[in-house]
Amino acid sequence: MQSIPISTDSLLRSLRWRYATKKFDPTRKISQADWNALEEALVLSPSAFGLQPWKFIVITDQATKEALVPVSWGQRQIADCSHLVVFAHKKEMDIEYIDAYLKRIIEVRGVTMESLMGYRKMMSGFLIEGPTRERIADWNQRQTYIAFGTFMTCAALMGIDTCPMEGLLPEKYDEILGLAERGLTTGEACPAGYRAPDDPYAALAKVRFETKDLVEYI
Amino acid sequence: MQSIPISTDSLLRSLRWRYATKKFDPTRKISQADWNALEEALVLSPSAFGLQPWKFIVITDQATKEALVPVSWGQRQIADCSHLVVFAHKKEMDIEYIDAYLKRIIEVRGVTMESLMGYRKMMSGFLIEGPTRERIADWNQRQTYIAFGTFMTCAALMGIDTCPMEGLLPEKYDEILGLAERGLTTGEACPAGYRAPDDPYAALAKVRFETKDLVEYI
Repeated sequence: MQSIPISTDSLLRSLRWRYATKKFDPTRKISQADWNALEEALVLSPSAFGLQPWKFIVITDQATKEALVPVSWGQRQIADCSHLVVFAHKKEMDIEYIDAYLKRIIEVRGVTMESLMGYRKMMSGFLIEGPTRERIADWNQRQTYIAFGTFMTCAALMGIDTCPMEGLLPEKYDEILGLAERGLTTGEACPAGYRAPDDPYAALAKVRFETKDLVEYI
Repeated sequence: MQSIPISTDSLLRSLRWRYATKKFDPTRKISQADWNALEEALVLSPSAFGLQPWKFIVITDQATKEALVPVSWGQRQIADCSHLVVFAHKKEMDIEYIDAYLKRIIEVRGVTMESLMGYRKMMSGFLIEGPTRERIADWNQRQTYIAFGTFMTCAALMGIDTCPMEGLLPEKYDEILGLAERGLTTGEACPAGYRAPDDPYAALAKVRFETKDLVEYI
Protein backbone atom coordinates (compact mmCIF):
# COMPACT_ATOMS: atom_id res chain seq x y z
CA MET A 1 0.00 0.00 0.00
CA GLN A 2 1.47 3.28 -1.12
CA SER A 3 0.58 6.73 0.11
CA ILE A 4 -0.24 9.23 -2.63
CA PRO A 5 0.62 12.50 -0.92
CA ILE A 6 -2.02 15.20 -1.20
CA SER A 7 -0.96 18.72 -2.01
CA THR A 8 -0.04 20.83 0.99
CA ASP A 9 -2.38 23.42 -0.48
CA SER A 10 -5.47 21.24 -0.11
CA LEU A 11 -4.32 20.11 3.31
CA LEU A 12 -3.92 23.65 4.64
CA ARG A 13 -7.08 24.81 2.97
CA SER A 14 -9.02 22.16 4.92
CA LEU A 15 -7.30 22.92 8.21
CA ARG A 16 -7.99 26.63 7.82
CA TRP A 17 -11.60 25.89 6.91
CA ARG A 18 -12.13 23.81 10.07
CA TYR A 19 -13.52 25.55 13.13
CA ALA A 20 -15.35 24.53 16.28
CA THR A 21 -18.83 24.44 14.81
CA LYS A 22 -21.32 26.08 17.13
CA LYS A 23 -24.42 25.39 15.05
CA PHE A 24 -24.99 22.33 12.90
CA ASP A 25 -27.54 22.02 10.13
CA PRO A 26 -29.84 19.33 11.57
CA THR A 27 -31.16 18.44 8.12
CA ARG A 28 -27.80 17.36 6.68
CA LYS A 29 -26.48 13.89 7.42
CA ILE A 30 -23.07 12.34 6.74
CA SER A 31 -23.40 9.75 3.96
CA GLN A 32 -22.77 6.13 4.80
CA ALA A 33 -19.70 6.04 2.54
CA ASP A 34 -18.18 9.07 4.25
CA TRP A 35 -19.01 7.71 7.67
CA ASN A 36 -17.34 4.40 6.84
CA ALA A 37 -14.13 6.30 6.11
CA LEU A 38 -14.34 8.22 9.39
CA GLU A 39 -14.98 4.99 11.27
CA GLU A 40 -11.85 3.52 9.71
CA ALA A 41 -9.90 6.67 10.61
CA LEU A 42 -10.94 6.18 14.25
CA VAL A 43 -9.95 2.53 14.20
CA LEU A 44 -6.58 3.26 12.56
CA SER A 45 -5.71 6.02 15.02
CA PRO A 46 -2.33 5.52 16.73
CA SER A 47 -2.04 4.90 20.47
CA ALA A 48 0.89 4.21 22.79
CA PHE A 49 1.98 0.57 22.45
CA GLY A 50 -0.87 0.27 19.92
CA LEU A 51 -3.02 -0.60 22.93
CA GLN A 52 -6.24 1.22 21.94
CA PRO A 53 -7.57 1.67 25.49
CA TRP A 54 -10.77 3.13 24.13
CA LYS A 55 -14.26 2.66 22.81
CA PHE A 56 -15.91 4.99 20.32
CA ILE A 57 -19.64 5.34 20.89
CA VAL A 58 -21.34 6.73 17.81
CA ILE A 59 -24.81 8.11 18.35
CA THR A 60 -27.24 8.90 15.58
CA ASP A 61 -30.38 8.09 17.55
CA GLN A 62 -32.13 11.43 17.98
CA ALA A 63 -33.69 10.66 21.36
CA THR A 64 -30.33 9.69 22.84
CA LYS A 65 -28.67 12.80 21.43
CA GLU A 66 -31.45 14.96 22.91
CA ALA A 67 -31.06 13.23 26.28
CA LEU A 68 -27.39 14.20 26.30
CA VAL A 69 -27.95 17.93 25.67
CA PRO A 70 -28.82 18.83 29.29
CA VAL A 71 -25.68 17.05 30.53
CA SER A 72 -23.56 18.84 27.91
CA TRP A 73 -23.93 22.38 29.24
CA GLY A 74 -27.02 22.65 27.04
CA GLN A 75 -25.00 22.73 23.85
CA ARG A 76 -27.27 22.04 20.89
CA GLN A 77 -24.51 20.67 18.66
CA ILE A 78 -24.98 17.39 20.50
CA ALA A 79 -28.51 17.03 19.14
CA ASP A 80 -28.18 18.85 15.82
CA CYS A 81 -25.13 17.07 14.46
CA SER A 82 -25.34 14.08 12.18
CA HIS A 83 -23.10 11.69 14.12
CA LEU A 84 -22.07 12.25 17.72
CA VAL A 85 -18.85 10.46 18.70
CA VAL A 86 -18.31 9.89 22.40
CA PHE A 87 -14.69 9.03 23.20
CA ALA A 88 -14.77 6.61 26.11
CA HIS A 89 -11.69 5.14 27.75
CA LYS A 90 -10.91 2.29 30.10
CA LYS A 91 -10.91 3.23 33.77
CA GLU A 92 -8.23 0.65 34.56
CA MET A 93 -5.59 -1.41 32.85
CA ASP A 94 -5.04 -5.07 33.60
CA ILE A 95 -3.06 -7.99 32.31
CA GLU A 96 -6.21 -9.52 30.78
CA TYR A 97 -6.57 -6.55 28.46
CA ILE A 98 -2.90 -6.61 27.53
CA ASP A 99 -3.20 -10.32 26.79
CA ALA A 100 -6.27 -9.74 24.63
CA TYR A 101 -4.19 -7.27 22.65
CA LEU A 102 -1.30 -9.72 22.34
CA LYS A 103 -3.76 -12.40 21.20
CA ARG A 104 -4.87 -10.01 18.50
CA ILE A 105 -1.26 -9.41 17.40
CA ILE A 106 -0.78 -13.17 17.17
CA GLU A 107 -3.97 -13.48 15.10
CA VAL A 108 -3.10 -10.65 12.70
CA ARG A 109 0.63 -11.26 12.32
CA GLY A 110 0.87 -14.99 12.84
CA VAL A 111 3.61 -14.62 15.45
CA THR A 112 4.04 -16.64 18.65
CA MET A 113 3.25 -15.60 22.22
CA GLU A 114 6.89 -16.36 23.12
CA SER A 115 8.09 -13.69 20.70
CA LEU A 116 5.88 -11.14 22.46
CA MET A 117 6.87 -11.85 26.06
CA GLY A 118 9.34 -8.95 26.19
CA TYR A 119 6.69 -6.59 24.88
CA ARG A 120 4.20 -7.95 27.43
CA LYS A 121 6.64 -7.35 30.24
CA MET A 122 7.39 -3.83 29.07
CA MET A 123 3.71 -2.89 28.85
CA SER A 124 2.76 -4.41 32.19
CA GLY A 125 5.85 -2.91 33.82
CA PHE A 126 4.94 0.52 32.57
CA LEU A 127 1.16 0.44 32.88
CA ILE A 128 0.38 -1.97 35.71
CA GLU A 129 3.43 -2.15 37.98
CA GLY A 130 4.95 1.27 37.31
CA PRO A 131 3.98 4.73 38.56
CA THR A 132 1.59 5.19 35.62
CA ARG A 133 -0.75 2.77 37.42
CA GLU A 134 -2.12 5.48 39.71
CA ARG A 135 -2.79 7.71 36.76
CA ILE A 136 -3.89 5.02 34.37
CA ALA A 137 -7.31 6.54 33.60
CA ASP A 138 -5.54 9.79 32.64
CA TRP A 139 -3.10 7.86 30.50
CA ASN A 140 -5.91 6.01 28.77
CA GLN A 141 -7.85 9.21 28.22
CA ARG A 142 -4.77 10.92 26.80
CA GLN A 143 -4.57 8.24 24.14
CA THR A 144 -8.13 9.02 23.09
CA TYR A 145 -7.04 12.60 22.38
CA ILE A 146 -4.82 11.26 19.60
CA ALA A 147 -7.92 9.71 18.06
CA PHE A 148 -9.82 12.92 18.77
CA GLY A 149 -7.25 14.96 16.80
CA THR A 150 -7.10 12.37 14.04
CA PHE A 151 -10.87 12.35 13.74
CA MET A 152 -11.26 16.13 13.48
CA THR A 153 -8.43 16.38 10.96
CA CYS A 154 -9.80 13.62 8.75
CA ALA A 155 -13.31 15.06 8.94
CA ALA A 156 -12.04 18.50 7.88
CA LEU A 157 -10.23 16.93 4.95
CA MET A 158 -13.51 15.35 3.89
CA GLY A 159 -15.38 18.65 4.21
CA ILE A 160 -17.15 17.50 7.36
CA ASP A 161 -17.54 19.80 10.34
CA THR A 162 -16.85 18.92 13.95
CA CYS A 163 -16.73 20.57 17.34
CA PRO A 164 -14.37 19.36 20.08
CA MET A 165 -16.33 19.18 23.34
CA GLU A 166 -15.04 18.70 26.84
CA GLY A 167 -17.98 20.52 28.38
CA LEU A 168 -20.04 17.56 29.50
CA LEU A 169 -20.75 15.60 32.65
CA PRO A 170 -18.89 12.30 32.26
CA GLU A 171 -20.78 10.46 35.00
CA LYS A 172 -24.14 11.40 33.44
CA TYR A 173 -22.92 10.29 30.03
CA ASP A 174 -21.73 7.01 31.56
CA GLU A 175 -25.18 6.50 33.06
CA ILE A 176 -27.11 7.29 29.89
CA LEU A 177 -24.77 5.22 27.72
CA GLY A 178 -24.42 2.36 30.23
CA LEU A 179 -20.63 2.63 30.33
CA ALA A 180 -19.73 2.54 34.03
CA GLU A 181 -20.53 -1.12 34.59
CA ARG A 182 -18.32 -2.00 31.64
CA GLY A 183 -15.16 -0.46 33.07
CA LEU A 184 -15.43 2.52 30.74
CA THR A 185 -15.89 6.21 31.30
CA THR A 186 -16.61 9.18 29.07
CA GLY A 187 -13.84 11.62 28.25
CA GLU A 188 -14.73 13.99 25.46
CA ALA A 189 -17.28 14.15 22.66
CA CYS A 190 -17.21 15.25 19.07
CA PRO A 191 -20.33 16.10 17.12
CA ALA A 192 -19.80 15.75 13.37
CA GLY A 193 -21.93 16.90 10.47
CA TYR A 194 -22.38 20.12 8.54
CA ARG A 195 -22.33 23.72 9.72
CA ALA A 196 -25.60 25.64 9.59
CA PRO A 197 -25.41 28.37 6.93
CA ASP A 198 -26.12 30.96 9.62
CA ASP A 199 -23.55 29.92 12.22
CA PRO A 200 -21.88 33.28 12.88
CA TYR A 201 -18.76 31.56 14.23
CA ALA A 202 -17.93 30.16 10.79
CA ALA A 203 -16.91 33.60 9.55
CA LEU A 204 -14.72 34.59 12.52
CA ALA A 205 -10.97 34.76 12.05
CA LYS A 206 -9.16 31.85 13.66
CA VAL A 207 -7.28 32.90 16.77
CA ARG A 208 -3.84 31.44 17.32
CA PHE A 209 -0.84 32.85 19.12
CA GLU A 210 1.81 33.97 16.70
CA THR A 211 3.80 31.10 15.25
CA LYS A 212 7.00 32.42 16.81
CA ASP A 213 5.34 32.13 20.22
CA LEU A 214 4.23 28.54 19.62
CA VAL A 215 7.03 26.92 17.65
CA GLU A 216 10.69 27.06 18.56
CA TYR A 217 13.63 25.73 16.58
CA ILE A 218 16.84 24.17 17.80
CA MET B 1 -11.90 29.92 2.28
CA GLN B 2 -13.50 26.73 1.03
CA SER B 3 -12.47 23.19 1.78
CA ILE B 4 -11.99 21.00 -1.28
CA PRO B 5 -12.67 17.55 0.15
CA ILE B 6 -10.09 14.93 -0.73
CA SER B 7 -11.27 11.50 -1.80
CA THR B 8 -11.85 9.07 1.05
CA ASP B 9 -9.69 6.67 -0.96
CA SER B 10 -6.57 8.83 -0.72
CA LEU B 11 -7.32 9.56 2.91
CA LEU B 12 -7.58 5.91 3.88
CA ARG B 13 -4.62 4.96 1.74
CA SER B 14 -2.46 7.37 3.72
CA LEU B 15 -3.80 6.26 7.09
CA ARG B 16 -3.18 2.61 6.23
CA TRP B 17 0.31 3.46 4.99
CA ARG B 18 1.22 5.19 8.26
CA TYR B 19 2.95 3.14 10.94
CA ALA B 20 5.15 3.84 13.94
CA THR B 21 8.43 4.11 12.08
CA LYS B 22 11.16 2.24 13.91
CA LYS B 23 13.99 3.17 11.57
CA PHE B 24 14.33 6.44 9.71
CA ASP B 25 16.54 7.08 6.72
CA PRO B 26 19.00 9.61 8.16
CA THR B 27 19.92 10.88 4.70
CA ARG B 28 16.42 12.08 3.79
CA LYS B 29 15.21 15.45 5.05
CA ILE B 30 11.77 17.03 4.93
CA SER B 31 11.78 19.91 2.44
CA GLN B 32 11.27 23.42 3.74
CA ALA B 33 7.96 23.73 1.87
CA ASP B 34 6.65 20.52 3.41
CA TRP B 35 7.87 21.52 6.84
CA ASN B 36 6.14 24.88 6.57
CA ALA B 37 2.85 23.05 6.03
CA LEU B 38 3.44 20.79 9.03
CA GLU B 39 4.30 23.80 11.15
CA GLU B 40 1.03 25.41 10.16
CA ALA B 41 -0.82 22.17 10.93
CA LEU B 42 0.62 22.26 14.45
CA VAL B 43 -0.33 25.88 14.91
CA LEU B 44 -3.88 25.32 13.61
CA SER B 45 -4.46 22.32 15.84
CA PRO B 46 -7.62 22.61 17.97
CA SER B 47 -7.46 22.81 21.77
CA ALA B 48 -10.09 23.23 24.47
CA PHE B 49 -11.19 26.88 24.66
CA GLY B 50 -8.64 27.45 21.86
CA LEU B 51 -6.16 28.01 24.67
CA GLN B 52 -3.08 26.34 23.12
CA PRO B 53 -1.36 25.52 26.42
CA TRP B 54 1.65 24.24 24.52
CA LYS B 55 4.97 24.88 22.88
CA PHE B 56 6.30 22.84 19.98
CA ILE B 57 10.06 22.45 20.07
CA VAL B 58 11.38 21.40 16.68
CA ILE B 59 14.88 20.00 16.65
CA THR B 60 16.97 19.53 13.55
CA ASP B 61 20.33 20.15 15.21
CA GLN B 62 22.07 16.79 15.07
CA ALA B 63 24.03 17.20 18.31
CA THR B 64 20.87 17.98 20.28
CA LYS B 65 19.05 15.03 18.74
CA GLU B 66 21.97 12.74 19.64
CA ALA B 67 21.98 14.09 23.20
CA LEU B 68 18.33 13.10 23.53
CA VAL B 69 18.79 9.47 22.45
CA PRO B 70 20.06 8.18 25.83
CA VAL B 71 17.10 9.79 27.60
CA SER B 72 14.67 8.29 25.07
CA TRP B 73 15.16 4.64 25.96
CA GLY B 74 17.99 4.61 23.40
CA GLN B 75 15.62 4.87 20.48
CA ARG B 76 17.54 5.88 17.36
CA GLN B 77 14.54 7.47 15.64
CA ILE B 78 15.25 10.55 17.75
CA ALA B 79 18.60 11.07 16.04
CA ASP B 80 17.86 9.61 12.60
CA CYS B 81 14.69 11.51 11.81
CA SER B 82 14.65 14.74 9.85
CA HIS B 83 12.66 16.88 12.29
CA LEU B 84 12.05 15.94 15.91
CA VAL B 85 8.99 17.58 17.44
CA VAL B 86 8.88 17.75 21.22
CA PHE B 87 5.40 18.49 22.53
CA ALA B 88 5.84 20.59 25.66
CA HIS B 89 2.98 21.85 27.79
CA LYS B 90 2.50 24.41 30.52
CA LYS B 91 2.91 23.08 34.04
CA GLU B 92 0.37 25.54 35.41
CA MET B 93 -2.43 27.76 34.25
CA ASP B 94 -2.86 31.31 35.46
CA ILE B 95 -4.96 34.35 34.72
CA GLU B 96 -2.01 36.05 33.01
CA TYR B 97 -1.94 33.35 30.36
CA ILE B 98 -5.70 33.48 29.89
CA ASP B 99 -5.47 37.26 29.52
CA ALA B 100 -2.66 36.94 26.96
CA TYR B 101 -4.98 34.68 24.99
CA LEU B 102 -7.88 37.14 25.30
CA LYS B 103 -5.55 39.93 24.16
CA ARG B 104 -4.77 37.86 21.09
CA ILE B 105 -8.50 37.36 20.39
CA ILE B 106 -8.98 41.12 20.62
CA GLU B 107 -6.06 41.67 18.24
CA VAL B 108 -7.22 39.13 15.67
CA ARG B 109 -10.96 39.73 15.79
CA GLY B 110 -11.11 43.37 16.75
CA VAL B 111 -13.55 42.71 19.60
CA THR B 112 -13.58 44.38 23.02
CA MET B 113 -12.38 42.97 26.33
CA GLU B 114 -15.89 43.59 27.72
CA SER B 115 -17.38 41.20 25.20
CA LEU B 116 -14.97 38.48 26.40
CA MET B 117 -15.54 38.79 30.14
CA GLY B 118 -18.01 35.89 30.25
CA TYR B 119 -15.55 33.68 28.40
CA ARG B 120 -12.76 34.78 30.75
CA LYS B 121 -14.87 33.87 33.76
CA MET B 122 -15.75 30.48 32.30
CA MET B 123 -12.13 29.61 31.56
CA SER B 124 -10.79 30.77 34.91
CA GLY B 125 -13.68 29.08 36.73
CA PHE B 126 -12.95 25.80 35.02
CA LEU B 127 -9.15 25.87 34.88
CA ILE B 128 -8.03 27.96 37.85
CA GLU B 129 -10.78 27.89 40.46
CA GLY B 130 -12.41 24.56 39.61
CA PRO B 131 -11.33 20.97 40.35
CA THR B 132 -9.29 20.85 37.12
CA ARG B 133 -6.74 23.05 38.88
CA GLU B 134 -5.13 20.13 40.68
CA ARG B 135 -4.82 18.25 37.44
CA ILE B 136 -3.98 21.19 35.25
CA ALA B 137 -0.70 19.78 33.92
CA ASP B 138 -2.58 16.65 32.84
CA TRP B 139 -5.25 18.78 31.23
CA ASN B 140 -2.64 20.83 29.39
CA GLN B 141 -0.81 17.72 28.24
CA ARG B 142 -4.05 16.15 27.04
CA GLN B 143 -4.53 19.10 24.74
CA THR B 144 -1.13 18.47 23.19
CA TYR B 145 -2.33 14.99 22.23
CA ILE B 146 -4.84 16.61 19.88
CA ALA B 147 -1.93 18.35 18.17
CA PHE B 148 0.02 15.07 18.29
CA GLY B 149 -2.79 13.24 16.44
CA THR B 150 -3.25 16.11 14.02
CA PHE B 151 0.47 16.20 13.27
CA MET B 152 0.80 12.47 12.56
CA THR B 153 -2.31 12.46 10.38
CA CYS B 154 -1.17 15.46 8.34
CA ALA B 155 2.32 14.03 7.96
CA ALA B 156 0.91 10.72 6.70
CA LEU B 157 -1.23 12.58 4.18
CA MET B 158 1.91 14.28 2.92
CA GLY B 159 3.80 10.98 2.67
CA ILE B 160 5.94 11.80 5.68
CA ASP B 161 6.66 9.19 8.33
CA THR B 162 6.38 9.67 12.07
CA CYS B 163 6.66 7.68 15.25
CA PRO B 164 4.64 8.56 18.36
CA MET B 165 6.96 8.37 21.37
CA GLU B 166 6.10 8.48 25.04
CA GLY B 167 9.20 6.52 26.00
CA LEU B 168 11.39 9.36 27.19
CA LEU B 169 12.47 10.98 30.44
CA PRO B 170 10.60 14.30 30.63
CA GLU B 171 12.82 15.83 33.33
CA LYS B 172 15.95 15.08 31.28
CA TYR B 173 14.35 16.55 28.18
CA ASP B 174 13.38 19.63 30.18
CA GLU B 175 16.97 20.00 31.31
CA ILE B 176 18.52 19.57 27.86
CA LEU B 177 15.97 21.85 26.22
CA GLY B 178 15.91 24.40 29.05
CA LEU B 179 12.16 24.11 29.57
CA ALA B 180 11.70 23.80 33.33
CA GLU B 181 12.59 27.38 34.20
CA ARG B 182 10.06 28.56 31.62
CA GLY B 183 7.08 26.85 33.25
CA LEU B 184 7.05 24.15 30.59
CA THR B 185 7.55 20.41 30.68
CA THR B 186 7.98 17.72 28.07
CA GLY B 187 5.12 15.36 27.32
CA GLU B 188 5.68 13.31 24.21
CA ALA B 189 7.88 13.47 21.13
CA CYS B 190 7.38 12.77 17.48
CA PRO B 191 10.24 12.17 15.10
CA ALA B 192 9.27 12.90 11.50
CA GLY B 193 11.05 12.09 8.27
CA TYR B 194 11.24 9.11 5.95
CA ARG B 195 11.31 5.40 6.73
CA ALA B 196 14.52 3.51 6.03
CA PRO B 197 14.01 1.10 3.12
CA ASP B 198 14.99 -1.78 5.40
CA ASP B 199 12.75 -1.02 8.39
CA PRO B 200 11.16 -4.46 8.87
CA TYR B 201 8.23 -2.91 10.76
CA ALA B 202 7.03 -1.16 7.61
CA ALA B 203 5.85 -4.45 6.15
CA LEU B 204 4.02 -5.76 9.21
CA ALA B 205 0.25 -5.91 9.16
CA LYS B 206 -1.36 -3.20 11.26
CA VAL B 207 -2.88 -4.58 14.46
CA ARG B 208 -6.22 -3.22 15.56
CA PHE B 209 -8.98 -4.83 17.55
CA GLU B 210 -11.92 -5.71 15.36
CA THR B 211 -14.04 -2.70 14.47
CA LYS B 212 -17.05 -4.23 16.25
CA ASP B 213 -14.99 -4.27 19.45
CA LEU B 214 -13.95 -0.63 19.11
CA VAL B 215 -16.94 1.17 17.67
CA GLU B 216 -20.48 0.92 18.98
CA TYR B 217 -23.60 2.43 17.51
CA ILE B 218 -26.64 3.83 19.26
